[in-house]
Amino acid sequence: MNDVHKQQMKSDIELIENAIRNYIPYAEDVKRQKVVIDAMRYSLEAGGKRIRPVLVLEFCRMLGGNINDALSAAAALEMIHTFSLIHDDLPAMDNDDYRRGRKSCHKEFDEATAILAGDALSVHAFSVISKDKNLSSDKKVKLMEVLSETSGYKGMIGGQIIDMENEMRDDVDIDNLHAMCDGKTGALIRCACLMGCIISGTDDEIIAKADRYGSCLGLAFQIVDDILDVTSTTEVLGKPVGSDAASNKTTFATLMGIEQADKLASKLTDEAIEILGQFEKSEFLKDLTHDLLVRIK
Amino acid sequence: MNDVHKQQMKSDIELIENAIRNYIPYAEDVKRQKVVIDAMRYSLEAGGKRIRPVLVLEFCRMLGGNINDALSAAAALEMIHTFSLIHDDLPAMDNDDYRRGRKSCHKEFDEATAILAGDALSVHAFSVISKDKNLSSDKKVKLMEVLSETSGYKGMIGGQIIDMENEMRDDVDIDNLHAMCDGKTGALIRCACLMGCIISGTDDEIIAKADRYGSCLGLAFQIVDDILDVTSTTEVLGKPVGSDAASNKTTFATLMGIEQADKLASKLTDEAIEILGQFEKSEFLKDLTHDLLVRIK
Repeated sequence: MNDVHKQQMKSDIELIENAIRNYIPYAEDVKRQKVVIDAMRYSLEAGGKRIRPVLVLEFCRMLGGNINDALSAAAALEMIHTFSLIHDDLPAMDNDDYRRGRKSCHKEFDEATAILAGDALSVHAFSVISKDKNLSSDKKVKLMEVLSETSGYKGMIGGQIIDMENEMRDDVDIDNLHAMCDGKTGALIRCACLMGCIISGTDDEIIAKADRYGSCLGLAFQIVDDILDVTSTTEVLGKPVGSDAASNKTTFATLMGIEQADKLASKLTDEAIEILGQFEKSEFLKDLTHDLLVRIK
Repeated sequence: MNDVHKQQMKSDIELIENAIRNYIPYAEDVKRQKVVIDAMRYSLEAGGKRIRPVLVLEFCRMLGGNINDALSAAAALEMIHTFSLIHDDLPAMDNDDYRRGRKSCHKEFDEATAILAGDALSVHAFSVISKDKNLSSDKKVKLMEVLSETSGYKGMIGGQIIDMENEMRDDVDIDNLHAMCDGKTGALIRCACLMGCIISGTDDEIIAKADRYGSCLGLAFQIVDDILDVTSTTEVLGKPVGSDAASNKTTFATLMGIEQADKLASKLTDEAIEILGQFEKSEFLKDLTHDLLVRIK
């Protein structure tokens, strides 16, 4: 990513971090519910790359919208993403004690608080959009429709269910892996692109392109992750590698082989970049896409 | 309740049951996500009195609205209520193996599926409202605003957090009990009344009255429940009594004594009925309120 784009990314992320902080009350103001608000903040402020909210802002900007109008949707989307991470880490789910180098929510607090903090973030996301003072009711309804659809049983949560079932099967095929990944990784990335379109007030043709871009990005991102789990080192990646093989997990890399998986990732990356090429002012998003997907070479 | 009102109640509940069924896909249509959809349906169709959706329909009708316009909001509200019951029953929360005489969701399925079914119902509620074909965007936004606010950390989930903390304390006072009950029982009952107002398109003055009616009804309902747990028998009530005393739980009955608690419940019931008296065509709601609250004598 070039220096101008790095600066733009930094400024986007500052806007997003501020928005996230402002949309959650300080626990001192709501004393009796302090523990659940502390837990919501703990997980929301745990960092992460904020890829989804950045995509909301940058799709909005590329299509001529005002990025300040995109902050409530960007924060809401990150709340939904965070709620899914909190619940994913629970003992009954992936049973992860750590997330991004810190204790996961149910280890820092307790299981009941983590369940409720996730639940509270999930509904608060819709509160944040519904109360936005800049957006028309028509846009708010479209934003909440796309957010609820992509996070529900057809989207993110559906992907998690398929993932859970796949872990108990030894006949996972490529269609199955696609469906899992479209839900678990792809749905909220598509949501981010679509939210940016809605806020900028663009037409259905452009929305269809943004949707396809989001699908390509989500799928390619997952394939690259799967490949790196085999080919990279813990030092380079900054997180443990080889975990998929250790847990006997079927991934794009194990199912297709590294070479074919790499080809598919390249094809999807090319298509994503080609879609962006149809828009003016797409330089930042092209650079971001390249950084997210071309991590292998 | 008189026979005409009994018939009206029956017809409301039929409409509501149909709406709930129609707003959840059949699992055959969404094969890969079958288990989570089965779990959503299992808990949604477990019955219950459907008090909240009936209140949505009847507030709408009393204020001159079309109850067919109220069905998406009524179903959405019942989805949020059901999601909270599924998560409440989890081992890390109340650890209840049964609900309404059937296995609770995590016993019929498993914990991970129950967590995800609750999560999916929570976001699906917003999808149902956002996709309604009869309502204006302005009304949809208001409905989703009130639903997200009353179910979040300030409302239903906030009440659950206070309840959990109260169980570990021996200094629970009346203010604390009020705050817990306003959230856990009151918030979604207020939401039901407010949703009926919004759909009928009424003004702020009437909304304030409906809000106060909902608060009185929610609080009085909880106090009556607390009293019956001391004074009734398992045969009359159809569920075990004495559970609050056995678990050393602080309730309105244990904190105020039966006599004072009864006086407070009567006062709130009178206020609720008085508010309804300010509206024409409030006969059904008066009768329903009476049935819900005058269960002691």
